[in-house]
Amino acid sequence: MGSTSVPAELLLLRDGIDEIDAEILKGLARRFELTQRVGELKASMDLEPFDGAREAEKLARLRLLAAELGVSGELTDELFSRVMREAVDNHRKLRAKRG
Amino acid sequence: MGSTSVPAELLLLRDGIDEIDAEILKGLARRFELTQRVGELKASMDLEPFDGAREAEKLARLRLLAAELGVSGELTDELFSRVMREAVDNHRKLRAKRG
Repeated sequence: MGSTSVPAELLLLRDGIDEIDAEILKGLARRFELTQRVGELKASMDLEPFDGAREAEKLARLRLLAAELGVSGELTDELFSRVMREAVDNHRKLRAKRG
Repeated sequence: MGSTSVPAELLLLRDGIDEIDAEILKGLARRFELTQRVGELKASMDLEPFDGAREAEKLARLRLLAAELGVSGELTDELFSRVMREAVDNHRKLRAKRG
């Protein structure tokens, strides 16, 4: 269908969604800056890149917040597990670089 | 290792990460409020729940922003594809409910 037939309210909602997505992505970028620093710190102190207890506890807290906000706990688990896996992979690379 | 041996800077960084994660989750909650309204609008106008062209264009723009922010394009693709799939699934349920 042509763009002229998209209802105005739908266009407004899409703008709102685009803004939120940009905010989320900027949040992720700030998050990776902090986890980068965590990785450097851990590598310098020879700490393990992956802390399973911390991760499980974090996911449990995020699921609680998700429930309060009406967001699927399963989705929350999947998304943040993926983000944390990326951070740990980056830490491992840092550690490997230091030898 | 005991919590007393976690360096203070690491604890501060973790607090910062926790705050960002809460922001991201709140952003997701607001996003699902908007996509819920999109779903209602689409169902009421008998529009398709899934718009492949819109989704591909959105992912392309998000990858550009990710590159600017130094975030992995692959990760961005995975995360937002998953979020959009959730929204479309919700739209399909709405549509099915209307029969």
